[in-house]
Amino acid sequence: MRSAPAALLSPRSIAIVGASDDITKTASRPLRFLRAGGFAGTVYPIARRETVMGEQAFPSLSALPECPDHAFVLLPTEGAMAAVAECARLGIPAVTVLAGGFSEAGPEGAAREDALRESLRGTGTRLLGPNSIGLVNLHHRMVLTANAAFAEPDLPLGGAFVASQSGSMIGAILSRGRGRGLGFAGLVSVGAEVDLDLGSICAATLDDPRITSYLLFLETLRGASALRDFAAGAAARGKPVVAYKLGRSTEAAELAVSHTGALAGEDDVADAFLRDCGIARVDTLESLLEAPALLRRLPIRKAGARKPVVGVVTTTGGGAAMVVDGLGMRGVSVEGPAEATRARLAAAGIDPGHGRILDLTLAGVRPEVMGAALDALLAAPEYDLVVAVAGSSSRFQPELAVQPVLEAARGSAHIASFCVPEAPQAIAMLAEAGVPVFRTPEACADAIAAAFARREPRPAAAPIPAGGEGRMLDEAEAYELLAALGVPHAPCVALPAASAGREELPFPYPVAVKVLHPDILHKSDLGGVVLGVASDAALAEAAGRIVESVAAHRPGLGADRVLVQAMTKPLGEVLVGYRRDPQVGPIILLAAGGVLTEIYRDRSVRLAPVDHGAAREMIAEVRALRALEGYRGRPPGDMEALAAAIVAISRLAERGDVVECEINPLMVLAEGRGVMAVDAVIRLGRDSDP
Amino acid sequence: MRSAPAALLSPRSIAIVGASDDITKTASRPLRFLRAGGFAGTVYPIARRETVMGEQAFPSLSALPECPDHAFVLLPTEGAMAAVAECARLGIPAVTVLAGGFSEAGPEGAAREDALRESLRGTGTRLLGPNSIGLVNLHHRMVLTANAAFAEPDLPLGGAFVASQSGSMIGAILSRGRGRGLGFAGLVSVGAEVDLDLGSICAATLDDPRITSYLLFLETLRGASALRDFAAGAAARGKPVVAYKLGRSTEAAELAVSHTGALAGEDDVADAFLRDCGIARVDTLESLLEAPALLRRLPIRKAGARKPVVGVVTTTGGGAAMVVDGLGMRGVSVEGPAEATRARLAAAGIDPGHGRILDLTLAGVRPEVMGAALDALLAAPEYDLVVAVAGSSSRFQPELAVQPVLEAARGSAHIASFCVPEAPQAIAMLAEAGVPVFRTPEACADAIAAAFARREPRPAAAPIPAGGEGRMLDEAEAYELLAALGVPHAPCVALPAASAGREELPFPYPVAVKVLHPDILHKSDLGGVVLGVASDAALAEAAGRIVESVAAHRPGLGADRVLVQAMTKPLGEVLVGYRRDPQVGPIILLAAGGVLTEIYRDRSVRLAPVDHGAAREMIAEVRALRALEGYRGRPPGDMEALAAAIVAISRLAERGDVVECEINPLMVLAEGRGVMAVDAVIRLGRDSDP
Repeated sequence: MRSAPAALLSPRSIAIVGASDDITKTASRPLRFLRAGGFAGTVYPIARRETVMGEQAFPSLSALPECPDHAFVLLPTEGAMAAVAECARLGIPAVTVLAGGFSEAGPEGAAREDALRESLRGTGTRLLGPNSIGLVNLHHRMVLTANAAFAEPDLPLGGAFVASQSGSMIGAILSRGRGRGLGFAGLVSVGAEVDLDLGSICAATLDDPRITSYLLFLETLRGASALRDFAAGAAARGKPVVAYKLGRSTEAAELAVSHTGALAGEDDVADAFLRDCGIARVDTLESLLEAPALLRRLPIRKAGARKPVVGVVTTTGGGAAMVVDGLGMRGVSVEGPAEATRARLAAAGIDPGHGRILDLTLAGVRPEVMGAALDALLAAPEYDLVVAVAGSSSRFQPELAVQPVLEAARGSAHIASFCVPEAPQAIAMLAEAGVPVFRTPEACADAIAAAFARREPRPAAAPIPAGGEGRMLDEAEAYELLAALGVPHAPCVALPAASAGREELPFPYPVAVKVLHPDILHKSDLGGVVLGVASDAALAEAAGRIVESVAAHRPGLGADRVLVQAMTKPLGEVLVGYRRDPQVGPIILLAAGGVLTEIYRDRSVRLAPVDHGAAREMIAEVRALRALEGYRGRPPGDMEALAAAIVAISRLAERGDVVECEINPLMVLAEGRGVMAVDAVIRLGRDSDP
Repeated sequence: MRSAPAALLSPRSIAIVGASDDITKTASRPLRFLRAGGFAGTVYPIARRETVMGEQAFPSLSALPECPDHAFVLLPTEGAMAAVAECARLGIPAVTVLAGGFSEAGPEGAAREDALRESLRGTGTRLLGPNSIGLVNLHHRMVLTANAAFAEPDLPLGGAFVASQSGSMIGAILSRGRGRGLGFAGLVSVGAEVDLDLGSICAATLDDPRITSYLLFLETLRGASALRDFAAGAAARGKPVVAYKLGRSTEAAELAVSHTGALAGEDDVADAFLRDCGIARVDTLESLLEAPALLRRLPIRKAGARKPVVGVVTTTGGGAAMVVDGLGMRGVSVEGPAEATRARLAAAGIDPGHGRILDLTLAGVRPEVMGAALDALLAAPEYDLVVAVAGSSSRFQPELAVQPVLEAARGSAHIASFCVPEAPQAIAMLAEAGVPVFRTPEACADAIAAAFARREPRPAAAPIPAGGEGRMLDEAEAYELLAALGVPHAPCVALPAASAGREELPFPYPVAVKVLHPDILHKSDLGGVVLGVASDAALAEAAGRIVESVAAHRPGLGADRVLVQAMTKPLGEVLVGYRRDPQVGPIILLAAGGVLTEIYRDRSVRLAPVDHGAAREMIAEVRALRALEGYRGRPPGDMEALAAAIVAISRLAERGDVVECEINPLMVLAEGRGVMAVDAVIRLGRDSDP
């Protein structure tokens, strides 16, 4: 049996199950498109008639003269399920299902999806879909899809490989890409990814030298591990991967859930995951198409690299300012040339000015002036990228406008361009030469920011141990585990409530008194916390009050111990969390404490474990923490100790016993004085104990 | 003498000062473009030669056989200044200057700018520019510009009037608009607006029935009062105004300053101003071109109108989700149909589904299905706008895809459309019929959000009284003024420091003690504040300590009085500020108190005065204040009292005596218990006293 991806992408023979003879029907398209595209292999229409589109039809898969490589099933849900079962029985390596009606359609659909999976179990047959509108391999002349967009003649051949969770988007990306001079190697609608997932399909194409970049349209995050493996393979081969993912807004995240039946997850977790995979995530549809040329030239940035700086040279200040504005909003700095560069520009007769952009005004229309300016900026060590913003001449004298950019791009990888007017010829010339060129200031800024945000892909963390969630630790046990990791906590003692206040404490008053029981998560809600306790007598009284109150709220729990803890006055509080995400695996989260942070959703997420550099990046990403970094003369907090704590907690990813850990708050003390956990919740994996 | 705007926009005769005979020179363009465009009036080239482009040239303006309506001066800075002076002397109504070298070029340039203004003083001559690349009135067949973009034949005639602070952008907008089927009435490069400003030029065209919308490209906010008057006139005539303004990022705001020599101001002040003028501010270049069609159909929302709700119908879930995502990020809700609408859809044989969008899938390709769905949604009272998201069919069967949208748009104003694939024909058909159509999901969401954010324009507040800034009030005087406005403050008494603690206070301990002196703004920095004072003795001690510390820091000031104030424990703190902005006039600002709010720049700005509804909107816009609105079971603050205080403070705009007022903090107490100023700074106008 051929491998499923090979059978899918380069089949020698295809069965079209439910092919229609009626050209107004969707089910007529795959056969028509295959023929129009000049597919060289064998095609078997399966239908209840003698012929389909004048070709001999067959009554069933089992009536075929051979076992085809791939069956594309166009039947409605129930018929599709039967057809998949038959494919499995016959040993057809790959089957694609167009129909929906599975897990996105409620409990009954989910049951159908289980049945679908069951029919494949133990067989060599692999499934694309359900809910896949098909796939296209232009180098194989195989246009096997029900998507109307592929009716087009002369589909643009090239190096882009598209994988999309939305079937309609493969058509939209095709037509929009054509308008931008982008050619395609293949396009796959991965559907619901019940069996074959997006990552595996793309991975199977990695060694195809004709494929130079990958464009992903994601509605949600699924098959994260395969996606990560594929992305690592792509990075190793220098093939960029760019993704547009829905779900930046709560509304769309919800929509992705209802639409696909998948769990959308939190968007910033997906963001951290994609970045960690070395995948560039863009925010505009235009940049999904326009970014690959830039990504092919700009290397993925090494961990710990300096903050990237962009230089901008232009003939039109207003046009360039739009790009600067867009970059600024995305946190990318545009800076004027440094001293040596200014000298070099002046030597070439160019006034370097005093602004962030090098505005050549009308003089820059002369190719030799623009060329000299580009040479100077591209040679300057201060720039990670130089953007040439072309004005009217890119429309009226495209050769003239494009020439210095093309020449500069021959010698330098870190160049991009944006045309301010509608300039189709200039754009086509630049695109054809592989020079990154953008049609809108927004796509330009978006793609640049996405390129700089990529990180060297990391291998996946150890797989999640089986067993699921187990018991909670009580607060004292949690501190013990944290101490073993190297995370300090506020001094405390665990006592039977009855003996509180009867023996000397190892730290001075005032203290906090808290009920100590692994099953109580929200202690305050049960009257389980008393703060500012200042004497032995008050401590005894507080402990008694706590036990009484908790017993009243949760009779039968038998919570009779308390934790007595020294009180600290910190500079600030943060929340550090760790958990194993069902999709992406271990993640580490940093947020400033308190209700405001929740309201702003001001947090930073990374895949765990992280090193010190990444922990510092996380601290920089949480805006509220600027208040602890010496903001406006305030005393600075011990951010090194905070980074060390983040690293330590993220190392939970290296051990299998902890499923979830949340320190809230972790107090940040003044510089040199460290951090201190003041509350902690840890959930073990089932059958684990520290 | 003709009026300057008429002479500018519809001149009978034009002198081109410095016209060049060399077609490679910029200065050759105006004459060539005028002739190519078929200008019907008289043109006088002024040059040091017999002929220019085969036409008779004149040695000087004074050598002309008549006084022309308009002189376009192409000479460099110094020559241009002389030419303007001569225009003024000869009584030429309008003069446009191409050259730069004025206030954007440092102190010397600023002096030149003053001289330029001086040469116009007392004459009837008005200036466009300097730094203007010219202007175009297509209905008058006048293409009078040095912008290369206008070399194009058959400039697209239509209803859009463009005014831009960037000269190059008029060319870019022209070419990009043409690509979108947009036709133009006129385009003006307003340059540095030293004399005629953008608002006055646009206002002069308001009664031209051929102009149906205005597109503004702004680098900064200048001539705010004329802009407001123009916008009010446009709103009264139902002509929408859409603006793209640079400066969303700090970087670009800075750039605008250095580029134009103008003060860019704070972007959110500009935002409040534009909204208050009824101008739609867009964030993408595409939507500047694509929004006008939507704005022409959607009325400006009345103050206090409900939160707008958008309905989305589509054949392609993934494509529609991009629009939903974009709207969600911009705070615009997309909701599924209400019960009655669902019934109506079901009666038409359409499954209303359960999601936020009405996804017709392939069935929606049939025009009658899409038509019935649109009818149902457009008739539904729950929707303020319905967006039809078209899939592949808009590319391959544009007539079919467009037909139901065109029909629906005939009967309903509140419809817009987005084509997911590249679909030039469908877009052209919709655009031609005046149906709002978008090419990217981002422009679609941006334009919709901008349309909904517009407000009914308000008349400008009373002009700022002359006299400038005067004296500061001390804290006690400030409370008195606030009390007169109806803003409560924490109980307090002003005392000589020497008598503090010697007489009974009208409120209980603990109290705050603060130095009382109008010249001390940052009391804490000087040791001028002691909190939590709990007895007569402590009060006397604190007052003594304060006087001593302040005297040590500011010897000779003679600060010997203190304010003793009751201490309150509020639910939260806010900052309410009022000031007269030099550009836009009185503004009112609300921000949550504390350092985090500063870091997040979480604030709301409106032009003052505001009514109760606007004050409630401002509260809703400050994200941190959600914590005071019963967030997650927290006790709610007295937001009605806060709104009342905002309204009261904003009424400072109605009196001339106060230049600046900042209450920080204004304590927000629990619901029903009001708000309370705990510190206040008020600066009077010169020669005013309350």
